[in-house]
Amino acid sequence: MEKKITVLPGDGIGPEVVAAAVRVLQVIAKRYNHDFQLAYAAIGGAAIDQFQDPLPEETIKMCKESDAILLGAVGGPKWDNNPADLRPELGLLQIRKTFDLFANLRPVKAFPSLLDASPLKREVAENVDLMIVRELTGGIYFGEKNRTESEASDLNVYTREEIERIIDNALSLAKVRKGKLCSVDKANVLETSRLWRQIVEEKKAQYPDVAVEHNLVDSVAMKLITNPGHYDVVVTDNMFGDILSDEASVITGSLGVLPSASIRSDNFGLYEPVHGSAPEIAGEGIANPAATILSVAMMLRYSFDLQDEAAEIERAVSSVFDDGYFTADLVKDNSRALSTDEWTDKVIAEIDTNF
Amino acid sequence: MEKKITVLPGDGIGPEVVAAAVRVLQVIAKRYNHDFQLAYAAIGGAAIDQFQDPLPEETIKMCKESDAILLGAVGGPKWDNNPADLRPELGLLQIRKTFDLFANLRPVKAFPSLLDASPLKREVAENVDLMIVRELTGGIYFGEKNRTESEASDLNVYTREEIERIIDNALSLAKVRKGKLCSVDKANVLETSRLWRQIVEEKKAQYPDVAVEHNLVDSVAMKLITNPGHYDVVVTDNMFGDILSDEASVITGSLGVLPSASIRSDNFGLYEPVHGSAPEIAGEGIANPAATILSVAMMLRYSFDLQDEAAEIERAVSSVFDDGYFTADLVKDNSRALSTDEWTDKVIAEIDTNF
Ligand SMILES: CC(C)[C@H](C(=O)O)[C@@H](O)C(=O)O
Ligand SMILES: CC(C)[C@H](C(=O)O)[C@@H](O)C(=O)O
Repeated sequence: MEKKITVLPGDGIGPEVVAAAVRVLQVIAKRYNHDFQLAYAAIGGAAIDQFQDPLPEETIKMCKESDAILLGAVGGPKWDNNPADLRPELGLLQIRKTFDLFANLRPVKAFPSLLDASPLKREVAENVDLMIVRELTGGIYFGEKNRTESEASDLNVYTREEIERIIDNALSLAKVRKGKLCSVDKANVLETSRLWRQIVEEKKAQYPDVAVEHNLVDSVAMKLITNPGHYDVVVTDNMFGDILSDEASVITGSLGVLPSASIRSDNFGLYEPVHGSAPEIAGEGIANPAATILSVAMMLRYSFDLQDEAAEIERAVSSVFDDGYFTADLVKDNSRALSTDEWTDKVIAEIDTNF
Repeated sequence: MEKKITVLPGDGIGPEVVAAAVRVLQVIAKRYNHDFQLAYAAIGGAAIDQFQDPLPEETIKMCKESDAILLGAVGGPKWDNNPADLRPELGLLQIRKTFDLFANLRPVKAFPSLLDASPLKREVAENVDLMIVRELTGGIYFGEKNRTESEASDLNVYTREEIERIIDNALSLAKVRKGKLCSVDKANVLETSRLWRQIVEEKKAQYPDVAVEHNLVDSVAMKLITNPGHYDVVVTDNMFGDILSDEASVITGSLGVLPSASIRSDNFGLYEPVHGSAPEIAGEGIANPAATILSVAMMLRYSFDLQDEAAEIERAVSSVFDDGYFTADLVKDNSRALSTDEWTDKVIAEIDTNF
């Protein structure tokens, strides 16, 4: 298979974890005889420094010519006091909107070997395997905004079409997973939530195999911690999804192992770790590359339909954890920690021994 | 001291836990020579059934003539399909707005004897003692709303005055607690958050003893679980506060022990447990009354400035837990559980033996 991938390393640890993930991608290419052509471009703070633009035209053009995007992370204190239109995060918001990447998939799967690092008791966190589906291009993120010295506002707005497509996406996912969907809203207060709930009710008839429940966001914020094993697919709006997916990430023990996909209906997608640019450890070579490596697996699965290749990466990552190899975020005793590159070597070795 | 208290038992387990808390209040009155005059009124589903109105005029009138309000809980499946203006929750939203109860205080304090019931590891949850201050009468809860079949919207809007008074409230609280304030927003996306952050920056100069940090809501949703011991006072808007305070409640092991106060600047306030009406166990006499009893303690502290009396209730509750007495929500083996009344008896006995 021949595919073009635009690589956007971004800021902080972004370039380090992306470099690691690209190494794994190339090994997969070699082993399975694929040709992945990579083209690098700028986003976020790096793009502001170079082009005074968090998402330069040149980057958009390259992404348009490619089959998928691999992103590191954006942001850092260096740009914190920049004017609104020159903040690194804007590059991220704009690329999501420009490419209509409305479905943000954030799987949270507990690796048994990492549970010591979780703040949750083992019996609560083990066996968790859920997927948060967050609407990514609508809601309060993109509604009309205003601010004066005496008042500010943000409009939370959803059209029927925006809700329908994300609900369809989540129901389809639930159908091929464990057959359960929890739709999260605040229907006792918000009108957007009432429309959301109504559309879920309309849509669910088309998916008779999926058991659908509605739950309020405050209640789910609790149950995600008290009983995360209850969930399969969780679908919610942009703002609630931002909060709940970060919250759910604590279950696994490290943000450093959580991948994400932001996709649209034709399978074009952007893949990035859930974690941020972690400027405090940038350049030290100690960042955990697992989240970005697993994001590459999601790319293979969702954008290229390469199921075996995706599964092989996931198997290798899991097996390296089981063998007791960890980066610094996952061990108390730092002298036992592997560097980003050393840990990536283990993953590559694990793939190689399988051939 | 003479005080008038309006009691709103509400729905589900509301009447049961309120009855228990009133018993404790009366014991305190006797022991400390106070005269608390109680007047009962309807709210929520009970008020809809009786008056076709979740917050009848008569109830508002009684609250206006009193010094504080004690509330049980509202809602239940019976009214789930009611039209929007006849939903029990509306009674709660309206009473908050009518009485301008803009500051919702939700303390989360770990009881050492309850940590077995927490989903968090003991070393993470122990020693937690934080206070969430949620803005309660503004934001997306009360902004303009619209819904058609094809689109819906909710306006998140804050004025400078609304933000200033809640920030002042939170800074004053931090000053007499551990001197730390975490202000939570989504300033990388929302204009309301940018105004919020700006006002926190302006205000903090007036409280030189308080260490102030800003943090994004998604990040706090994680850190509340990975490192809850980090927090002292956490201040945020209505919607984020709803989510984060329910999330933080899991730390203690049961929603059944979490009180709340909703107050305004003149110390008039409404006191209620954080938990809901729990219709599935209503009428069984097994509900945990601790949250409502501790809400009475908050009433004594914040509305009546009766510090010793408040502390005595808190001491008694804590000591009953330490003696190994629990309601059903806190034990695995139900045969060991005390009923609502039995557990309240223990609290009263504990207060009595102290005199
Ligand atoms: C950086 C920020 C704008 C972004 C968001 O809120 O969507 C991030 O938190 C995320 O979840 O990807
Ligand atoms: C019942 C509901 C309207 C209410 C809210 O969202 O404020 C509740 O969740 C709470 O937190 O008191």
